[in-house]
Amino acid sequence: MSEIHKDRITELRKVMAKAGISAYLIPTADFHNSEYAAEYFHAREYFSGFTGSAGTLIVTADEACLWTDGRYFIQAAGELTGSGVQLMKMQEPGVPSIQEYLRGKLTEGDVLGFDGRCVPFKEGKAFEKLVKGVKAGLAIDKDLAEEIWTDRPALPCHPVMILEDDYSGEDMDSKLGRLRDVMHENGASVYIDSKLDSIMWLLNIRGADVTCNPVALCHILVDDRNVYLFIQEGEVTGELRAYAALHRISILPYDDFEDFLGIYDYKSDVLCDPDSISYRVYKAAEQGTAKSGAGAELVEAESPLQAFKCVKNAVEMANIRGCYKRDSVQLCRFIKWVTEEMKKPEAEREALTESSAAAYLDNLRAQLDDYMDLSFETISAYGPNAAMMHYSAVPGVSDAKLQPEGMLLVDSGGQYLSGTTDVTRTIALGPVTEEMKKHYTLTAVSNLQLMGAVFLDGCTGVNLDILTREPMWREGLDYKCGTGHGIGYYLGVHESPPSIRWKVFPGRQDTPFKPGMIVSDEPGVYLEGKYGIRIETILEVVEHEENEWGRFFAFEPLTLVPLDRSLIDVKFLTPYTRQLLNDYHMRVRSELMPLMNAEEQMWLIEQTEPV
Amino acid sequence: MSEIHKDRITELRKVMAKAGISAYLIPTADFHNSEYAAEYFHAREYFSGFTGSAGTLIVTADEACLWTDGRYFIQAAGELTGSGVQLMKMQEPGVPSIQEYLRGKLTEGDVLGFDGRCVPFKEGKAFEKLVKGVKAGLAIDKDLAEEIWTDRPALPCHPVMILEDDYSGEDMDSKLGRLRDVMHENGASVYIDSKLDSIMWLLNIRGADVTCNPVALCHILVDDRNVYLFIQEGEVTGELRAYAALHRISILPYDDFEDFLGIYDYKSDVLCDPDSISYRVYKAAEQGTAKSGAGAELVEAESPLQAFKCVKNAVEMANIRGCYKRDSVQLCRFIKWVTEEMKKPEAEREALTESSAAAYLDNLRAQLDDYMDLSFETISAYGPNAAMMHYSAVPGVSDAKLQPEGMLLVDSGGQYLSGTTDVTRTIALGPVTEEMKKHYTLTAVSNLQLMGAVFLDGCTGVNLDILTREPMWREGLDYKCGTGHGIGYYLGVHESPPSIRWKVFPGRQDTPFKPGMIVSDEPGVYLEGKYGIRIETILEVVEHEENEWGRFFAFEPLTLVPLDRSLIDVKFLTPYTRQLLNDYHMRVRSELMPLMNAEEQMWLIEQTEPV
Repeated sequence: MSEIHKDRITELRKVMAKAGISAYLIPTADFHNSEYAAEYFHAREYFSGFTGSAGTLIVTADEACLWTDGRYFIQAAGELTGSGVQLMKMQEPGVPSIQEYLRGKLTEGDVLGFDGRCVPFKEGKAFEKLVKGVKAGLAIDKDLAEEIWTDRPALPCHPVMILEDDYSGEDMDSKLGRLRDVMHENGASVYIDSKLDSIMWLLNIRGADVTCNPVALCHILVDDRNVYLFIQEGEVTGELRAYAALHRISILPYDDFEDFLGIYDYKSDVLCDPDSISYRVYKAAEQGTAKSGAGAELVEAESPLQAFKCVKNAVEMANIRGCYKRDSVQLCRFIKWVTEEMKKPEAEREALTESSAAAYLDNLRAQLDDYMDLSFETISAYGPNAAMMHYSAVPGVSDAKLQPEGMLLVDSGGQYLSGTTDVTRTIALGPVTEEMKKHYTLTAVSNLQLMGAVFLDGCTGVNLDILTREPMWREGLDYKCGTGHGIGYYLGVHESPPSIRWKVFPGRQDTPFKPGMIVSDEPGVYLEGKYGIRIETILEVVEHEENEWGRFFAFEPLTLVPLDRSLIDVKFLTPYTRQLLNDYHMRVRSELMPLMNAEEQMWLIEQTEPV
Repeated sequence: MSEIHKDRITELRKVMAKAGISAYLIPTADFHNSEYAAEYFHAREYFSGFTGSAGTLIVTADEACLWTDGRYFIQAAGELTGSGVQLMKMQEPGVPSIQEYLRGKLTEGDVLGFDGRCVPFKEGKAFEKLVKGVKAGLAIDKDLAEEIWTDRPALPCHPVMILEDDYSGEDMDSKLGRLRDVMHENGASVYIDSKLDSIMWLLNIRGADVTCNPVALCHILVDDRNVYLFIQEGEVTGELRAYAALHRISILPYDDFEDFLGIYDYKSDVLCDPDSISYRVYKAAEQGTAKSGAGAELVEAESPLQAFKCVKNAVEMANIRGCYKRDSVQLCRFIKWVTEEMKKPEAEREALTESSAAAYLDNLRAQLDDYMDLSFETISAYGPNAAMMHYSAVPGVSDAKLQPEGMLLVDSGGQYLSGTTDVTRTIALGPVTEEMKKHYTLTAVSNLQLMGAVFLDGCTGVNLDILTREPMWREGLDYKCGTGHGIGYYLGVHESPPSIRWKVFPGRQDTPFKPGMIVSDEPGVYLEGKYGIRIETILEVVEHEENEWGRFFAFEPLTLVPLDRSLIDVKFLTPYTRQLLNDYHMRVRSELMPLMNAEEQMWLIEQTEPV
């Protein structure tokens, strides 16, 4: 394969030379700063051969370098072998950052090129500053892949659906009113946004342009009277057209957004989030406002839509609670099935692999009434494979056979009209070691301590993270990822801004928890070459108590799937954490029982007996 | 008294009118942004009558308003009665901030006045922006109190001492080398600083100009060749002059700093911390650099001296450990004495009050070899008085008689050549209620959980704070202050930047813990009108373990004074917290035993028996 990529980079260098570009940068991104991008946007993979979900390729006349993070060092080293592309291990000592590399390479008269639609406003501005510092130029208008990648997949284009108020809980006019209030508070009468989940939420629509993500490619401009929606013709159904007419939404071609920003008649300032629009959109708006004569400027602020969206309303919460119960039952059925299979004599049991087990679970989810899709590709990782946080079983390539021993880690979730789920359970398939039990119990304690937290209004994930890590740190262990993330409502399975982690990023303001937020609680132990354990339960922030000391919040679990009692070693529990475990199991039992048949009920009772 | 203050404000208004000033602001500050200021700087108290440690007075032609925070609402309301000064309760709903108030009052042509030496650079810039916004002017050159306050105390002026290397652990040339490295990293060849503890630390000198704070009023300018020290003639001893000659320190008059900044020949940029210099110093440096012709500018950065100073070196740490042991023994002696007195029949025991008990303890400290001063006025608060965090007993005014029941809270510390101590213990003087025991045990658990923490390099106090608050929050309690602060080495008892609290202040970067930092651990329960409990132990950050997951740190206690076992209710302890308590007591026992006589040893053994 590597020869192909070598040739492609040679082609790219020819096109670069023709366009007068000295260094060309290809990020892993679409036009909307999405976490997951459609195949159309996989140019970095096309040129480098590296298939990971994060990375940046820079090609110059004599070098090609790919930056990626620690999750992908091993994979990237393999995939880049023989391609001539040099792996740049981010954050490793002695490895220059992208900025440092470019500052060293570019000199006066050079030109840095990238597709300005695929680089967020904030990053684009940093590159602008960088080239100015070395007296180089910037070319942001060309997607050089266009000329070379002849069999490029088309831009995805699927019909959009309207999400009924029974699901959304708030009609778009009400949401629009709240947005306009924030616009006015910021002295703006125009708001622009390219962030797909924000737009879906605001307009109460959903799309199908990105696998596992019910979003439609689009941009919006909102002013005091109208909403301008820029979307591909093929996505617009009769239903959407009628809905648009009713709600003063003007539908315009997807590609016309930047031109529109150049000619729009700005009466006052434009509100935007530097993370929610691309560098090219920013440039277009900047030129448009400069021409306006009204002295309009761009006002940067954190997206009000992201802030609204993460606090679920009462209707959404009621739907989500039901959705998580039904989803939890399916995962219980899976656990019951796979553990019972493993107990059978070898001759009688199915020959299961990581991927065939995942398929069984996916099929269980698909049977649910309002199932739409998976919320991400199910991670089914057996034994040492589970030590890789982003492992993906591929039949015929890497697909371990399940044995009646050790542990299986399953991280999975569904997209339903009534919510988006995400859950991880690690299951003993047979005999396990004492060390596995110790580490599983530690992980359970971490998970339960966070679930049992009581905290004052104003607390962020940075304050709470140590409740999960403290049991690990005392044992000299850690997990190299955050503890929790927000989750959308029939939207992205990872949703900003809520997050639980201990590291503070300079300049980033953490969002305090509020009732109605939902967040994952997913500590783990990952021992390379040995095994991986993760327990992920989704929590809802709820009111707890209000008194002279303030307003206290707490968590309640949405995910209701037993932890594996056979992996619990009670000597690592305190009376408090033991109580937390038994309380959780009692809740699981009482909530799920009505949704199960007699045999399943018997199984559940056994799984949730107090330890 | 209030008539006096009314008259003084009337006088001030006359002087304001003459000077063309519409609003005059008097902060609580000296020329060095010190936490504690000498009496010379108590102008706010002189005009308003309010004696609290924090507050800002603003006088206009027809209004006089004093802003202070929640700690002082009750006290300020009392002291301001009849003075015509209006109390502005900071952070209370409907109360304008100082900025909001001024924005509403000042109009075109008005002039806002303040002594620009008493306002830090950062705040001064905010006022500059504010007046520009309303087209008003700014007068920063006059201290209007000068003309009215005829019996003003003199600026303090005491001889400076040199701190030997046996105490400082690093000579000033080495410290200067580190400072110059940071200057160069920032492209600067000049550094200016007015922060007293920073200058004392850098030059290895100490003064006696502020009660309980061994600092001398001074400023410095450091360049690549010299140190210019601006200090009053009366502070300069022959020893200091010889030391200065040896270390290229040029001694110049205290008052000449601003003039010097105006004429200094700047060759390149000037590094400064906006919190460490006054607004007037900033203005003088700005004018000086503008004239320089070399294009020199002011580079703002967090003070490297504050960052260096808070990490104690090996010599300092060895001194501090010994110092805390000796200081702890004296507190043990006090506790033994006061509790034994209380056990005597009334006829036989001394008639003790809060202040006479404090005097006994202060006298014990003064007996130690290298004792220099108290590190702050001892807080001795009995019964309900202890619910006020900043209570101060005053004989004849408020000085409760100690009874053989309830609790006494004692927060105290000393200044020694070998360190600065700070410790709080709450002691049962006789029978206590079950509620008191519960709340004392909760406070002990909070204190011990933090002491027992293990955490990764990079963690800040914002990450760790919940380890102390979690037991409180679960009971619906909280304490309305931070959990911990840094402590100087024979310097300020409160030392930035280390701190332990959960609230994040926008724009303020928290400092990760490093071995050699020392920090207080002081949770509490404060029930108005009932009682107050605080347990304060000073902790040292130490290396714990380094492995594949990172570098782990832990705390070790420097303060070695038993908690009150008679106030511990074991039913609120878990096996883990019980172990922490017993481990702490075993350490106290083994460390202090050699420093005690036989009777004291018997007492200590009893106090430290396992629970």
